[in-house]
Amino acid sequence: MEKEISAEIMTIGDELLYGQVIDTNSAWLGQELGKIGIRVKQITSISDNPNAITDALTQAISRADVVLITGGLGPTKDDLTKHTLTRYFNTDLQLHQPSLDDVEEIFRKYNRPMLEVNRQQAFLPATCTPVRNVLGTAPGMLFQEQNTVIVSMPGVPFEMKRMVTDTVLPYLQQHYALPQIIHSVVQTIGIGESFLSETIADWEDNLPANIKLAYLPHLAGVRLRLTGFSKDGQDLEAQLQEQVDKLTALIPDHIFAYGEVPLEEAIGHLLKERNLTISTAESCTGGLVAHKLTSVPGSSSYFLGSVVAYSNEVKKAQLGVSAETLEQHGAVSEETVCAMAQGVRQLLKTDIGISTSGIAGPDGGTPDKPVGTIWIAYADAHQTVARKINYNKTRQLNIEYTTLQVLDLVRQSLRRRVEE
Amino acid sequence: MEKEISAEIMTIGDELLYGQVIDTNSAWLGQELGKIGIRVKQITSISDNPNAITDALTQAISRADVVLITGGLGPTKDDLTKHTLTRYFNTDLQLHQPSLDDVEEIFRKYNRPMLEVNRQQAFLPATCTPVRNVLGTAPGMLFQEQNTVIVSMPGVPFEMKRMVTDTVLPYLQQHYALPQIIHSVVQTIGIGESFLSETIADWEDNLPANIKLAYLPHLAGVRLRLTGFSKDGQDLEAQLQEQVDKLTALIPDHIFAYGEVPLEEAIGHLLKERNLTISTAESCTGGLVAHKLTSVPGSSSYFLGSVVAYSNEVKKAQLGVSAETLEQHGAVSEETVCAMAQGVRQLLKTDIGISTSGIAGPDGGTPDKPVGTIWIAYADAHQTVARKINYNKTRQLNIEYTTLQVLDLVRQSLRRRVEE
Repeated sequence: MEKEISAEIMTIGDELLYGQVIDTNSAWLGQELGKIGIRVKQITSISDNPNAITDALTQAISRADVVLITGGLGPTKDDLTKHTLTRYFNTDLQLHQPSLDDVEEIFRKYNRPMLEVNRQQAFLPATCTPVRNVLGTAPGMLFQEQNTVIVSMPGVPFEMKRMVTDTVLPYLQQHYALPQIIHSVVQTIGIGESFLSETIADWEDNLPANIKLAYLPHLAGVRLRLTGFSKDGQDLEAQLQEQVDKLTALIPDHIFAYGEVPLEEAIGHLLKERNLTISTAESCTGGLVAHKLTSVPGSSSYFLGSVVAYSNEVKKAQLGVSAETLEQHGAVSEETVCAMAQGVRQLLKTDIGISTSGIAGPDGGTPDKPVGTIWIAYADAHQTVARKINYNKTRQLNIEYTTLQVLDLVRQSLRRRVEE
Repeated sequence: MEKEISAEIMTIGDELLYGQVIDTNSAWLGQELGKIGIRVKQITSISDNPNAITDALTQAISRADVVLITGGLGPTKDDLTKHTLTRYFNTDLQLHQPSLDDVEEIFRKYNRPMLEVNRQQAFLPATCTPVRNVLGTAPGMLFQEQNTVIVSMPGVPFEMKRMVTDTVLPYLQQHYALPQIIHSVVQTIGIGESFLSETIADWEDNLPANIKLAYLPHLAGVRLRLTGFSKDGQDLEAQLQEQVDKLTALIPDHIFAYGEVPLEEAIGHLLKERNLTISTAESCTGGLVAHKLTSVPGSSSYFLGSVVAYSNEVKKAQLGVSAETLEQHGAVSEETVCAMAQGVRQLLKTDIGISTSGIAGPDGGTPDKPVGTIWIAYADAHQTVARKINYNKTRQLNIEYTTLQVLDLVRQSLRRRVEE
């Protein structure tokens, strides 16, 4: 077997260490490198300080075949990476005319004055291969040292991503003979990590040696990731599929998708398949259910609209919840949430209406209905189903958890409809 | 001056390297340590593999005074950290009865069967100080080695956060004589990094040596972070405030908040101060504006509700946009977006109505109105203001950018109202 090609990611910036920015670039890079069979072995975040950059880079080069660096290439004074790399690789800066043309083009497009700091961004280390940045003013730089490929890119996610997709990945695929790694993801909901682990223990113990399993818990379930290693693509695909089929037989009710499909997209597929439309009536989730549903491209074919009914007035006037229901049972109750789901379905003329009403916190709880008391409902022409949730983490988590639960209620209700 | 106390964060898990989970723990830890004057110098993410953990830990201990480890303590088979630490610190596992009591209590509370893997979680290295986990089944472990404090915690964010706040930070404050670091954040919107940098260049050049400035660009503006270093708290606060005041005088129109206040919270303050209510009529943002507004605790005092009008039918029937307007100008037009803002204001009886309508992509563009063509509007009893945005990144970014822009339109409109 050939040598596995390994990568390290270095992200530069005090803002990462101080925690003022979350590093989302590394996860994306890890995914993209994984897809072409390069395995990330370490991610290191360091200060935008020449010594820290130099030390980390020396170590990374000694361990890895590929080092991808993000951050520290903007036009402002806290950006030191380019100058540090120029010294590190013992070269000097020179004007790279195509990069200057690109920068000028960007300022023309947005009709803004180009500044001297932006002109300076087109000066690059003489020994690097420039990496074009069509979405921003800082070009990337590719170096080779001791059989390691080093690429430095800006930290702005959409600029970096485009550069990686257009230039860096194709370069690495040409440069290295890459082995094959395939990930197969099975997404579950409504089953905890411990219970899941016991349920599938026998299957897990009998996995072939070249397939690894990982549990990736999330807010309302667990993502299971099978990772297969091989040099022979065809065989590995079939081998993974066989294991996924066995796993599916063990937990059929809890799987909502295969692969990196978010729950809202899985729901979208179900609705499209069945040619059904949906609307939402949201109190405590405040629009997040609608946002999730509409974050899926093409969702306008099944999602028609929503009413976010935060006040009781809106629940009454728009959704037709009766004053009596609200007085007798309160806004957070089975009766109200059912009336909301039915109400929005009728108001917006959709096949399905779903609703949420609860106390997301941190205030608003009572002894009777403490923070985290939440009702959700699903209504279609044949049935109305409500469910009570007790979940009290933070306001944001309570809202997100409720959103996942009401989307899963759609999944479960549609499954039942087919079975009946 | 006393020695600065430095920290490193180690996050463990193949899921981080493969990019299947984004590391949000490190950013939070960086913030919390910063607040008590401990500076994070490096964040390292590694595989859940005993050798990788041992190597990274040896290096981190050699460099830092504090090493915080997250991840790899769950009940499933891919979790190796506890066993690796037990070997690393040359000790063995023994039952920790209070931890077992906690685990049993959790299973009682959720009324689920406790499993053997969960019982195993109460076995801890004999030489560690256990760190209580009241929200989950894996206790933390605190070690001391070569004057370094090492704490290992589960990767589940809310469990880890609670342990840090309740136990780890108080311990570190007792253990070390900590210097003072104060961050002062000034949040701007509507001004690009380059132009901002030129506008404030003189001020930046004249900052005192103990105050550092960083530019943290985000989707629609730049967060400016001033970091002051001192041993004398009182003086540093005043020194930072003086610089913030000078900065404010240079860019008064672009500052929406001081400190870590999101735009939606700043808008909430403005509405509360003025005793105004708001509603939203959303097409392309699909509920995200409402979600942002309602993510602020207490937002029910000024936010009454929203209509997500994805289909033209809902725009007509609920928001009163005339068929004529939609036919003549289209759903993505100044006329439609103004009618939506006015319509939702009247429908939900609020002082202010705001609206969005645009082509978020990836499909739906025309030569006349390409993807990224977006209209937003603000309406109150005195005025209706519309604005056109051209922004075409990804669907998700287009939606998020539009959301920030329409919230900023509220800020600008309220500012103008006061000035008039």
